[in-house]
Amino acid sequence: MPERKSVLIVGYGGGLGLSLARAFGSHGYAVTGLARTAPAAAAPPNTTVVTADATDAVQVQAVVDTMRDEGGGPSVLIHNTAELVIKPFLETSEAEFERVWRSMVLSAVIASQAVLPGMLHDGGGAILVSGATASLRGGANFSAFASAKFALRGLTQSLARAHQKQGVHVAHVILDGIIWSERSRALHGVEKEACLDPDDIARAYRGLVEQPKSAWTHELDLRPSVEGF
Amino acid sequence: MPERKSVLIVGYGGGLGLSLARAFGSHGYAVTGLARTAPAAAAPPNTTVVTADATDAVQVQAVVDTMRDEGGGPSVLIHNTAELVIKPFLETSEAEFERVWRSMVLSAVIASQAVLPGMLHDGGGAILVSGATASLRGGANFSAFASAKFALRGLTQSLARAHQKQGVHVAHVILDGIIWSERSRALHGVEKEACLDPDDIARAYRGLVEQPKSAWTHELDLRPSVEGF
Amino acid sequence: MPERKSVLIVGYGGGLGLSLARAFGSHGYAVTGLARTAPAAAAPPNTTVVTADATDAVQVQAVVDTMRDEGGGPSVLIHNTAELVIKPFLETSEAEFERVWRSMVLSAVIASQAVLPGMLHDGGGAILVSGATASLRGGANFSAFASAKFALRGLTQSLARAHQKQGVHVAHVILDGIIWSERSRALHGVEKEACLDPDDIARAYRGLVEQPKSAWTHELDLRPSVEGF
Amino acid sequence: MPERKSVLIVGYGGGLGLSLARAFGSHGYAVTGLARTAPAAAAPPNTTVVTADATDAVQVQAVVDTMRDEGGGPSVLIHNTAELVIKPFLETSEAEFERVWRSMVLSAVIASQAVLPGMLHDGGGAILVSGATASLRGGANFSAFASAKFALRGLTQSLARAHQKQGVHVAHVILDGIIWSERSRALHGVEKEACLDPDDIARAYRGLVEQPKSAWTHELDLRPSVEGF
Repeated sequence: MPERKSVLIVGYGGGLGLSLARAFGSHGYAVTGLARTAPAAAAPPNTTVVTADATDAVQVQAVVDTMRDEGGGPSVLIHNTAELVIKPFLETSEAEFERVWRSMVLSAVIASQAVLPGMLHDGGGAILVSGATASLRGGANFSAFASAKFALRGLTQSLARAHQKQGVHVAHVILDGIIWSERSRALHGVEKEACLDPDDIARAYRGLVEQPKSAWTHELDLRPSVEGF
Repeated sequence: MPERKSVLIVGYGGGLGLSLARAFGSHGYAVTGLARTAPAAAAPPNTTVVTADATDAVQVQAVVDTMRDEGGGPSVLIHNTAELVIKPFLETSEAEFERVWRSMVLSAVIASQAVLPGMLHDGGGAILVSGATASLRGGANFSAFASAKFALRGLTQSLARAHQKQGVHVAHVILDGIIWSERSRALHGVEKEACLDPDDIARAYRGLVEQPKSAWTHELDLRPSVEGF
Repeated sequence: MPERKSVLIVGYGGGLGLSLARAFGSHGYAVTGLARTAPAAAAPPNTTVVTADATDAVQVQAVVDTMRDEGGGPSVLIHNTAELVIKPFLETSEAEFERVWRSMVLSAVIASQAVLPGMLHDGGGAILVSGATASLRGGANFSAFASAKFALRGLTQSLARAHQKQGVHVAHVILDGIIWSERSRALHGVEKEACLDPDDIARAYRGLVEQPKSAWTHELDLRPSVEGF
Repeated sequence: MPERKSVLIVGYGGGLGLSLARAFGSHGYAVTGLARTAPAAAAPPNTTVVTADATDAVQVQAVVDTMRDEGGGPSVLIHNTAELVIKPFLETSEAEFERVWRSMVLSAVIASQAVLPGMLHDGGGAILVSGATASLRGGANFSAFASAKFALRGLTQSLARAHQKQGVHVAHVILDGIIWSERSRALHGVEKEACLDPDDIARAYRGLVEQPKSAWTHELDLRPSVEGF
């Protein structure tokens, strides 16, 4: 295991990234949040935010190298990028399919390849990947998004089957609902009670990282009690 | 919510029942373990063991009524009966199919119907059901066991869709591996490192019960890091 | 392979049974339809209808023995019993759960155990099992039905894994929609165009039986083109 | 419906492409096989082979336009590209992930977008997509292949949910086994009896296209009777 507990959040930025930083930063983790653009919100304690392109292996590797130089790790990778395209298939461009795949799938490949050698050297680690309703169901107007979320699920299974025996816990979390934020209220007209609270999601992620090796979860769903499914 | 936290374990007895009793009993829960026969091991603190037939609605209702009379609840039901029959389909008798179904599926119906009215009255509760590898895959020599475990999964989904909106969290846990015990070592020739530790399973169950309403898990798997899947 | 092509339909009676008898009877099969009660409709050509209790192994075995005595087989078993209970879980009695399980799951066990020895002796055969939407999803008011349909799916997988290598093709068909009949129109207010045509289902079943050994289907779904899913 | 029956096979070339051309060409279909490179084997009757890059929308659209100019259609699209990469995740390059995604997923997007407007204009059609074992299970050394096959499954679901109500049948076929060819024998050391016969697969594809609108299959598996699963 590495000298220190540290977590790299790829796809920091939105509300969930901030909650993840708080949930891990408050429990002894050094947190690095990798965001496409500098977020408006101040970083919580123990959190460093770096702006980088998650689809550029050189930039991601540099972030990981800095983490190792500064004390070790990352012991945890959380992949949480989102590129939601909702439109009819015939109106979804080739470029959109590619952009969604790059930002959601290729970025997971790049981040995992950047952190795994260190985790294997350290004898352990955890990789958590955020899925969605569309990980299990390709809806009519979700062709680009669902194909990317399905891809991510297949990739995560492959990672688990390849690396869990080497001590790296790989888990896929199906977020089946709308994550609460003021933006969600404006976009979807939902109230907080009907949404996934990002702080609660973040605590569930920390719970996965803390699972003992005898009882690892590879996949779980999270949804509000009132959500239909 | 009920006046006190209390948990009814249907299928107490084996190693997991004891671990569940410890995990909940040590965290403020009054525990009642319902076992077919009195277990050899002493009950842990805060645990009452009752011998009853889980397939007899009258007996189960009496246990639940006693729990309510004694202080309220149960706020949590854990269904954990096991009736493992492994043999070729043509050698599995009709009586075995029925026995497996009664002890694994009908007992879940009976226990859920006994506890749900109280949970709905109290405004909440949790029902946790133990699944297995055979919940997702009907293996060649597991016809009776797999058909019962599949049935239990379908039942649990129905319970979740009917009662989560009323505040009762319903979860299905796929235990994908051998649960450690001295008996497992003797039966399967396995070492502890390759098995699910029942104490770790029990902590995961407690974690499910403690999930906030904004982020409930309906299904998760648990397996040792070294388990192939 | 047996001397003659013959099919036993367990759960003859409703509209689908009649369509199955026509689809197989018109293609050289001797058809035996096992029904709980004598159906009003006349039997199509090459079809014998017997009234028997599909949950009584002695009665079912007698039907199979008669088929063998009369020329061989059955080379095909179609399991198609239905016992649809739709009601809230807390209003579904223990007796209803048992009745649904007996008529839908135990009857499949009994019929399969009655036909398999002959199929194995003859060096081949086919067992087709009718599933439903509820085979994959436990809906809120379908606890008894879904748990039985899930059970049937697990059982069918076990049968396939045990007996396909011995030449017996085992397939599970998910009928995802309302099967057309005048009764469906009255009950559900649907038009024929929105329903599964039982003759089309029956042809799909015959197609499964005719699949060559190099390319067997274990599971497929059938739904109207206009059905949402 | 179009004036003539015609099928476009994207990923013609290997053994399955030839079998598909025979199965459809012998039943009144005008067949166009789109291959990356000109295949060695002579084209069967009623089959035109064109070499084009399936990941280039302009080239694919030109092939579809030619088909429409020559008599209408395509009424059927079969997507059957394969780009099998089997290697450890840490040895799979970013370029390989992208190549696999482009040739297996983006090519399906491009071909579907090229044929759908004509199918919708004609009032019907069919799109069949070849899946694999890796469509449902991400194996340890299949990260690139499985993530692409998962993606293709999600995409196919989206297409079905968007376009089946408009008369376009969309189906996903899980080919769970090794497709027989002399090359398979050399590569995997398998005998024909243990393999999927490409002619049998092709007949199953034709069967899907011929399904009546009341009973469409969205997903089915095909595997040799002797295959473990």
